[in-house]
Amino acid sequence: MQYPNNIKKSYNHISVSHSNRGMSLENLLNHTNDYYIKKDIALIYKKPTPIGVAEVSYSDHKKLIKKAYFKEQSTLDYNGIYKGKYIEFDAKETLNKTAFPIANVHTHQIDQIRGVIRHQGIAFLIIKMNNFYYLLKGEDFLLFIDNSNRKSIPYTYIKNNAHLIKEGYQPALDYLNTVDEIYFKGE
Amino acid sequence: MQYPNNIKKSYNHISVSHSNRGMSLENLLNHTNDYYIKKDIALIYKKPTPIGVAEVSYSDHKKLIKKAYFKEQSTLDYNGIYKGKYIEFDAKETLNKTAFPIANVHTHQIDQIRGVIRHQGIAFLIIKMNNFYYLLKGEDFLLFIDNSNRKSIPYTYIKNNAHLIKEGYQPALDYLNTVDEIYFKGE
Repeated sequence: MQYPNNIKKSYNHISVSHSNRGMSLENLLNHTNDYYIKKDIALIYKKPTPIGVAEVSYSDHKKLIKKAYFKEQSTLDYNGIYKGKYIEFDAKETLNKTAFPIANVHTHQIDQIRGVIRHQGIAFLIIKMNNFYYLLKGEDFLLFIDNSNRKSIPYTYIKNNAHLIKEGYQPALDYLNTVDEIYFKGE
Repeated sequence: MQYPNNIKKSYNHISVSHSNRGMSLENLLNHTNDYYIKKDIALIYKKPTPIGVAEVSYSDHKKLIKKAYFKEQSTLDYNGIYKGKYIEFDAKETLNKTAFPIANVHTHQIDQIRGVIRHQGIAFLIIKMNNFYYLLKGEDFLLFIDNSNRKSIPYTYIKNNAHLIKEGYQPALDYLNTVDEIYFKGE
């Protein structure tokens, strides 16, 4: 179906929560984690990006980095504790509307998802796609990639197997509410 | 008692494991954590030091940091999962032989120790003092600072309440063996 350009635009806007528009997924999660910490709901932090320092200088007894480069995280970006359980996850965004490219998740991150699950922790991906936020359990992500040669996960698989995270005001992206429904059902 | 200088020196050496001499506490722990990961015993990592990036440049499409400064970690330096439990700890060294200066542990780190325990995780300090390595449970650390106005913890308190970590070759500093004795007794 074809919409005139302006109608299509306003249609697209309906599914987007106005308060959070323009905020990056990382910012939404940082705000949300700050909220969880302030309310003592969970202690979950984004790990700092690792860097390799090549050159430093000293001014006023303070060490200043003059040359450095970004390195890759060997784990997922976010981890912490919630209701006594270890949680680790990563946030991924794609502009692709029909499939999530698996290359977005690096090999060592896939290994880490396996490892966290093996050690009885909770591991998942938060995926932003088509203006929705999904929580895809590590188990369901691995189920797909271990049983398929495809280079991307079809959007229908995500719609059917991942869990929609409701957007809100405080917190902006209450993913622990989704974690409750999945991992703490009946508690 | 006074020893001639050379005898005192050789006496001091007895308590030090030769293989690890000269390795910093951070290196010992990094080696140990690598060993735990390789043997699939635990997934525990040192968090990267957070930096504030002030200036970047691009060469060959690679982002290069031209100016940045070190920031303070808001959590403890090490965290991860062991036997399904969340673990967070920090490593501290003092050259003071009679007392451990509490100023070594920043206020936000003390808050973090309280938080991890409140959320049913395992929190502790690994303290290097007098050439020994001690695991001081978060609970015992808080017990001291909450009931004392002192600016440092006497070495006797550490000797009596902390747990000695045995040095070895592989892993260099098997602190999870100590964690087993304290937190997983009878399992």
